[in-house]
Amino acid sequence: MKELPTYQSLVDSFAKLPGIGAKTAERLAFSVLEMKEEDAKQFAQAIEDAKAKVHPCPVCGLYTEEETCDVCHDPSRDHSTCIVVAKAKDALSFEKLNDYHGVYHVLGGLLSPSKGIGEGELKIDQLLSRAKSEGFKEVVIATNPTLEGETTALYLARLLQKERIEASRLAYGLPVGANLDYADALTLQRALKGRKKL
Amino acid sequence: MKELPTYQSLVDSFAKLPGIGAKTAERLAFSVLEMKEEDAKQFAQAIEDAKAKVHPCPVCGLYTEEETCDVCHDPSRDHSTCIVVAKAKDALSFEKLNDYHGVYHVLGGLLSPSKGIGEGELKIDQLLSRAKSEGFKEVVIATNPTLEGETTALYLARLLQKERIEASRLAYGLPVGANLDYADALTLQRALKGRKKL
Repeated sequence: MKELPTYQSLVDSFAKLPGIGAKTAERLAFSVLEMKEEDAKQFAQAIEDAKAKVHPCPVCGLYTEEETCDVCHDPSRDHSTCIVVAKAKDALSFEKLNDYHGVYHVLGGLLSPSKGIGEGELKIDQLLSRAKSEGFKEVVIATNPTLEGETTALYLARLLQKERIEASRLAYGLPVGANLDYADALTLQRALKGRKKL
Repeated sequence: MKELPTYQSLVDSFAKLPGIGAKTAERLAFSVLEMKEEDAKQFAQAIEDAKAKVHPCPVCGLYTEEETCDVCHDPSRDHSTCIVVAKAKDALSFEKLNDYHGVYHVLGGLLSPSKGIGEGELKIDQLLSRAKSEGFKEVVIATNPTLEGETTALYLARLLQKERIEASRLAYGLPVGANLDYADALTLQRALKGRKKL
C-alpha cells in the first residue's frame, strides 16, 4: 500500500501538537477519516477561526477575540493585584477558581539561560511599566515550582521590590488529598517550613 | 474571563477525537493558538483535504485517494490470499511488515449483538462474493483477540468453509520480548497449546 499524501500530511500536522507521538497522530488522523463530513469541516473551520480571531491581549497577554481582553477592560476587577504567569493557559486555572478578581500578566516563558531565554525575551519591562501605570499593590508570582520558575520568580521579586511593590509567591506544601507516604522530601520540607497555626 | 467562543469550539472539536479528554483538548487547542500561522493553516487544510480526497476503496475498504486502492489494482500482489480486518487501520500494521503480499478486506467492525451489530452491518456478503470472483484460496482472519473478534472469526470461518475456502486465524502466543512472569493464564495456555517443534 502506497502512503496517501493527504493522509500523511494530516498525520504530520497532528504529530506537531504537544504530547502527540507518531502512533497517536496516526490514530487521530484515522479518526478524522472516519468522522462525519460536517464534524471534519467544523474542526478545520475551528482551527482557522481560532487562529484568525483569537490573539493575545496587548496589555496582559491573555487570549482574547476583542481589542483588549475582558479582564483588562473590566472595571469591577481589582486592578491593584496582578498574578504573573508564564503562559496564558496558566491564567485559566485561576479563572476557573472563581475566587480571584485581580488582573494577570503573561510573561511568555521563563528565564532559562540554557535555552537562551533572557529577560529581553520575556514581558518583564511591560510588567514593570504596568505596575507603575496601573498602580499594582501586590504581584503574585505564579510560575511553576521548577528550577526555571523559581529563578524567574526571585528575579521578578527583586525588580518589584526595588519599585516598592509587594511581590508574593504561591504557597508550597502538600496538595490537598495527597498522601504523606508519597510526598517527596522537598515538598514535605516546604510544607513543614510553611506550617500554619490552627 | 469570559470563554472565547472560537477557542471553545476548537476545544470541542479536539474533545471529539478518540482518547482525547477535556484537559488534553484544552491543551491541544492552546497549542493551536500558539502555532505559527502557516502551521495552523496547513493543519486545517490537511483535515479538509483528507476528508475530501481520501475515501474507502469500494472493493476492499482500505482508504485510497484513487478510484480503487493500490492494493486492489496491483497485479503483482497475490489476489488469492486475503487478510480480513475489522478496521482499515488494522491493515496498515500488516503493510508495515513489508512481508505480506496478498490483499485485504475491511469488515467495518465486529459482530456484537449487545451493540446491535449483526452480519448485515458488516461487509460479510462482499467478502464472500469477492472470495468467489477473485478466487481466494486462503482467508486469514485478523480480528482482535477479544470476545467480539473471536466470535466474528468463528462466524466467518464457518461461512468460508461452506464455500470450501481455507480460513485461518493469526497465531496466539507470547508476544516477542515478553516476560513469562507477566503473561496472563489464557495467553500462556494458548502458547502451550500452539507450541511448535524446534
